Amino acid sequence: MSAPTLSISRRLRGTPFTNRVSEAGVKGYTVYNHMLLPTVFESVEADYHHLKKHVQVWDVSCERQIEIRGADAARLMQMLTPRDLRGMTPGQCYYVPIVDETGGMLNDPVALKFADDKYYISIADSDLLFWAKGLAYGLHLEVDVNEPDVHPLAVQGPKADELMARVFGEQVRDIRFFRFHLLDFQGNEFAVARSGYSKQGGYEIYMDGAQNGEALWDALFKAGEDLNVRAGCPNGIERIEGGLLSYGNDMTRKNTPHECGLGRFCDTQTAIGCVGRDALLRVATEGPIRQIRSLSIEGDPVPPCTDKWSIFADGERVGRVTSAAWSPDFNTNVAIGMVRMTHWKEGTKVEVETPDGMRSAVVHLKPYI
Amino acid sequence: MSAPTLSISRRLRGTPFTNRVSEAGVKGYTVYNHMLLPTVFESVEADYHHLKKHVQVWDVSCERQIEIRGADAARLMQMLTPRDLRGMTPGQCYYVPIVDETGGMLNDPVALKFADDKYYISIADSDLLFWAKGLAYGLHLEVDVNEPDVHPLAVQGPKADELMARVFGEQVRDIRFFRFHLLDFQGNEFAVARSGYSKQGGYEIYMDGAQNGEALWDALFKAGEDLNVRAGCPNGIERIEGGLLSYGNDMTRKNTPHECGLGRFCDTQTAIGCVGRDALLRVATEGPIRQIRSLSIEGDPVPPCTDKWSIFADGERVGRVTSAAWSPDFNTNVAIGMVRMTHWKEGTKVEVETPDGMRSAVVHLKPYI
Repeated sequence: MSAPTLSISRRLRGTPFTNRVSEAGVKGYTVYNHMLLPTVFESVEADYHHLKKHVQVWDVSCERQIEIRGADAARLMQMLTPRDLRGMTPGQCYYVPIVDETGGMLNDPVALKFADDKYYISIADSDLLFWAKGLAYGLHLEVDVNEPDVHPLAVQGPKADELMARVFGEQVRDIRFFRFHLLDFQGNEFAVARSGYSKQGGYEIYMDGAQNGEALWDALFKAGEDLNVRAGCPNGIERIEGGLLSYGNDMTRKNTPHECGLGRFCDTQTAIGCVGRDALLRVATEGPIRQIRSLSIEGDPVPPCTDKWSIFADGERVGRVTSAAWSPDFNTNVAIGMVRMTHWKEGTKVEVETPDGMRSAVVHLKPYI
Repeated sequence: MSAPTLSISRRLRGTPFTNRVSEAGVKGYTVYNHMLLPTVFESVEADYHHLKKHVQVWDVSCERQIEIRGADAARLMQMLTPRDLRGMTPGQCYYVPIVDETGGMLNDPVALKFADDKYYISIADSDLLFWAKGLAYGLHLEVDVNEPDVHPLAVQGPKADELMARVFGEQVRDIRFFRFHLLDFQGNEFAVARSGYSKQGGYEIYMDGAQNGEALWDALFKAGEDLNVRAGCPNGIERIEGGLLSYGNDMTRKNTPHECGLGRFCDTQTAIGCVGRDALLRVATEGPIRQIRSLSIEGDPVPPCTDKWSIFADGERVGRVTSAAWSPDFNTNVAIGMVRMTHWKEGTKVEVETPDGMRSAVVHLKPYI
């Protein structure tokens, strides 16, 4: 099945940037957190080359925010994730796996700490708000859990620093990786973080107030004319090359963080009070029996990976590919999948059952870039 | 913005029927609970006429199920909804508004009671599983809350009884509205309910086990050849004519059940323990100040309602239209929207600001059919 039509309704929420995205010639969307997320402008491959050379503005409003405020904010945050948050200071971003009581992944968001009693959680594709609200209610926590009027806009690519400095001032260059500063834009204060869903460097602007969307978009495009700034979006090829996981694609509620290669973010001994600790303690001791790996798949470009592809070795299934795309820069198909421990070592040769037939493939410990 | 392309990925889950839906010539999809939901086969208008005359098979797998099992199942169910569930018996379906602690709608599902310690909740478009799991965890309830391998298939239209009788036996005719029986299909037991998201009558089959999907689909099409059975889907025109609400379109977390015209399902005096009781008690006493209404909008067919349209009277905004479509049978545009109490009486003349300009409209107390 390739490229059917998406029927637009109010239920698939537009964003403060949707008009601009449309004017920029968006060709495809996906739906993410009940919201429109662009997937392609010129072509996935042309967008990919441009992203690696220039700078792009991405409407990632679909990274919805959960605002947690109140006396028990830090307590709820630590319940939500097995990552030890005691060292987190205001101005920091933490990538935090969120699990249920069985250790199954519910989301893999980025948390932002504003103060001891105020956090944002910038979520992947699941209604994490409901989980946080359910816990807060059940445990009578003194917190307010809500979705604020905040809509992230990402600026990604090698020229992102230059473009952002022109719009937000030279101080943006001082923002370290996974830190954010509160910066002024036309009288509004936005959190600006050095982060984003690409490996090309850049920022995420937590734009506050839907009414400011088009002014911000326009300011970036006006300032970036000579930088060849374009509208873009998370790129399916580049994120697989970089080993960036996609919740719902590469992992679901059936997977533990350890299977997802996120064991280093699970401090099950010290993250006291976190949900899922009992389940994850055992995994942390014994290790998972399957884990996320990068793979290269030989031969011609593979078709879109719309379903799991089995990975075989010696006639047995030893894993499943969950994302795959042709990489022009590496001149091979790049992929992400779960592989059993018997076959997860660097360089292991396996076979992948694609819709076009069986292909030779190689398991890699690290992503391409 | 009309009909962009939907980029398919594994994150937008296929269903046990997706291959058959594709073979049947689906032309458009929406995404609902992270899953593909067909929106059009021949054309929305042709599908509409066919639905009202014949019988259709709908892949509504996206109505995901939450299974609640265990000693505290009934307690959790009553926490989830302000509807009094004490009279609910095994084999009954209840339409249950689900609200948060502020009385804001989180979902408007149909609950099925199998036994005192086993319920399904057949959900609208939000991850209600996370809310139910969060409450259960926070309150240490003795329940298991999970998504079973169950995928609803709806059979809708005036010939649905005849088709279902041929596949499941004459006993299906005895199933009363919003009741379900457990019936055999090729050695499997499926819950079969007289229910569905149309006003044309019919059933929903809670197909258990993804591997049974194509056999069930094929059996219905084979048995229904002379009934002119076709693949269909919830129809955008028919559901607005019938006043069937769509969570995310016509109501969100910002609305109370009373605003949605669901006050009759809120037994705030007797549904002891339900979340949101305190907030809803006041609304129940004083009534809401705005409420869902059907509207007819005069003039030519309106464009797709992809954003709220303001409703004006005497130069003031008195509401918003949230769904609208041209109705061939009623020869007018039918719509659903929230209207302020000053203008919600039957026959009130208002104006609606559509993308094509201001239109005269009339407020109705009841849907068209």
